[in-house]
Amino acid sequence: MIGVAARGEGPVRVGLLGCGTVGSAVVRLLDQGGATIERTSGHRLEVARILVRDTERPRPGVDPSLLTTDPSEVVDDPSISIVIEVMGGLDPTLGYLRSALGRGASVVTANKQLLARYGPELLAAAQQSGAELRFEASACAAIPVIKVLRESLLAADITAVTGIVNGTTNYILTEMSRAGLPYDVALSQAQELGYAEADPTEDVGGADAAAKMAILSSIAFHTRVHVDDVPFEGIDGLQAEDIALAGRLGFVVKLLGVARLAEGAVSVRVAPALVPAGHRLAAVGGPDNAVLLESRTTREIMLVGPGAGGDETASAVLADVISILGTHRGSFLHNALADSGRPIAAPGDVESAFYVRMSVADRPGVLARVASVFAEEGLSIRSVVQTGSGDEASLVLVLHAGAERRMAAALAAVGALDEVRGEPVMLRVLGSGEGG
Amino acid sequence: MIGVAARGEGPVRVGLLGCGTVGSAVVRLLDQGGATIERTSGHRLEVARILVRDTERPRPGVDPSLLTTDPSEVVDDPSISIVIEVMGGLDPTLGYLRSALGRGASVVTANKQLLARYGPELLAAAQQSGAELRFEASACAAIPVIKVLRESLLAADITAVTGIVNGTTNYILTEMSRAGLPYDVALSQAQELGYAEADPTEDVGGADAAAKMAILSSIAFHTRVHVDDVPFEGIDGLQAEDIALAGRLGFVVKLLGVARLAEGAVSVRVAPALVPAGHRLAAVGGPDNAVLLESRTTREIMLVGPGAGGDETASAVLADVISILGTHRGSFLHNALADSGRPIAAPGDVESAFYVRMSVADRPGVLARVASVFAEEGLSIRSVVQTGSGDEASLVLVLHAGAERRMAAALAAVGALDEVRGEPVMLRVLGSGEGG
Repeated sequence: MIGVAARGEGPVRVGLLGCGTVGSAVVRLLDQGGATIERTSGHRLEVARILVRDTERPRPGVDPSLLTTDPSEVVDDPSISIVIEVMGGLDPTLGYLRSALGRGASVVTANKQLLARYGPELLAAAQQSGAELRFEASACAAIPVIKVLRESLLAADITAVTGIVNGTTNYILTEMSRAGLPYDVALSQAQELGYAEADPTEDVGGADAAAKMAILSSIAFHTRVHVDDVPFEGIDGLQAEDIALAGRLGFVVKLLGVARLAEGAVSVRVAPALVPAGHRLAAVGGPDNAVLLESRTTREIMLVGPGAGGDETASAVLADVISILGTHRGSFLHNALADSGRPIAAPGDVESAFYVRMSVADRPGVLARVASVFAEEGLSIRSVVQTGSGDEASLVLVLHAGAERRMAAALAAVGALDEVRGEPVMLRVLGSGEGG
Repeated sequence: MIGVAARGEGPVRVGLLGCGTVGSAVVRLLDQGGATIERTSGHRLEVARILVRDTERPRPGVDPSLLTTDPSEVVDDPSISIVIEVMGGLDPTLGYLRSALGRGASVVTANKQLLARYGPELLAAAQQSGAELRFEASACAAIPVIKVLRESLLAADITAVTGIVNGTTNYILTEMSRAGLPYDVALSQAQELGYAEADPTEDVGGADAAAKMAILSSIAFHTRVHVDDVPFEGIDGLQAEDIALAGRLGFVVKLLGVARLAEGAVSVRVAPALVPAGHRLAAVGGPDNAVLLESRTTREIMLVGPGAGGDETASAVLADVISILGTHRGSFLHNALADSGRPIAAPGDVESAFYVRMSVADRPGVLARVASVFAEEGLSIRSVVQTGSGDEASLVLVLHAGAERRMAAALAAVGALDEVRGEPVMLRVLGSGEGG
């Protein structure tokens, strides 16, 4: 293993293979997150070299002097201790990663097809040289499911992994179901919105989901599942009629990856499936991903997040880089709690949206008087409902966000009105940037 | 720091403080998971000593010779390198943990009230002696949210943490909402089902959620949030009328912890709040917990799981112990993929439930013929719907779980019937132990 420099001994040099959407985002996030990483890990990261096909293409935010077309400047440079692979493909990528791991450099990769085929071999190479191979970004990058499986649930005896692991197809299916669109129309819409590639074959045909399920089931069941072990079907043959019929029968159609361990044998499959409408996976719509983990020691856990875009993938890559820093030098996370003293906002200054119910005398003008009290405190009313009548009359108001302090003042003033009986009831309302 | 024994150098000795529900479960899981932990980490764990108040009380599965009433036998024994604290309380627990960390033993604790008050001090003590302090079990034990925040999202610039972090109150609110029960009745029901303690004050009053939110927000925002910085209200004053009105207005009432970082200042609050019915937190019902994480670099991530019982808490404790082993000796997780070769089940042998739609001639006897084909393959029908008539007639069947091979045979046979036109459409159905 190539030692990552000890704290304070100079920067940890990182090499990138590839600098497309994900690579550029990695460079940007390393830049933005650099201070946090240094503060909590004691390591400064430095992007040393970036392999590209074309050094002339402009890449905003990327220093052109770092670009090279010579892979050995990343793969074989002994001063580079972490290699990030975001170029994709099987060949020549596999060779690069073998070389890097072989000389003891740690590797972070987002390459699901490569891992679903050569994962065990690469892990063995890493183990032999004492390097790390990390790949959170390869399957549902936005959800840290690999870390959870590898570490939190290592001894949990996972028995099933069920996932919506492809955002493109989930978006298409959601639209087919919601708007009754035929497959072709929903696909075009997904392409217009950037949820589907110009050539969507790998997504809609199920191959992308199959590779992800091969990786997840390998980790979950501590075994080798090759992508060829995963039979898969896509959604490209799915008919709107079946989605509608499934709906009438109380089901939602999802492209599911289902991996199970039963009687010691592993089975993994990707196929469109009917999910009962009350099931928690049925509620995962649009381009979101979700993974449901079942085990013998703990009940179902579900992780939900966006399907991976460039930033999500880059963020997962960065998390892997940070984990490598932590592993090489012991835990560094204490600082996370100990070193920053952010101010605590005064509770009265914090803004929330509010629900208020009060018993009122059922007579003309009462709403006007109540409304003017809130208006005086700068609190604006989103909706009002009056319920009951006579002695049973109540006013129910939902208010837009305002400072807690102002609401407290308004409640006191409203409670003092002749027309209001007893104490008003106040609850908070969760909304965009507003909450409990 | 006390070195954890190098691989193969003899067992890692673990001491327990407390042996109630959680402690007994920890002993059991260490026992059950021992082989997996040893295989993947190279470390054998051994429970060395267990502090209890009463050594005479029978504890199934726990070796009575390990029990002691003398805390120094756990806290001060230099051969014990990991101390697990599951006794609860502030005093004398705090002193025990100070002593253990002070001599360099790592500590795993499930004690939320202690951490929400003395977390920074204990972390500083750990840092000083080079020991580890881990506390996944202290907040939403069944969901590895602390690991995700501390590691996966360390550099993600978290801006908000919104959580349903108390299972007791979520169960009570779900029942009040679903069945229109008054608070007292729903509470009694929760107590009967074991979802609420005989003295439910800490849960229903919001103090439990406040401590958890103090811990989660400290980690999320890299700062110190004391439980006294968290204003909290419980659900004990909530009226059924407001839950019903909220429902009419399109909201669900939840006890929410809301932590936000805005303009550099942190605000954290626990209070019952109206959540829009379409919001993903609204769907988290019963005793479940959920935490929603928002950040600048990645869109919303949600983690959902059961509220913590003894086994979930013990499982989180175990995950922390495993993380400590990994941190002390570098990454050991490669083996997880490399060393076990579980068989892959033949796809034809795997069982799924199925949906089948076929165009049929609309004449008497067709259902009987179709049904007998499935029966011959041992596939039993759960429901049948006929749609359309004449040339437009279709039969839609949902079948109970059966082997894929049998379904393939049945589809071929059914497709060959005179009454069936074209290829039948087959989709899988996700069900209990059945799926895609």
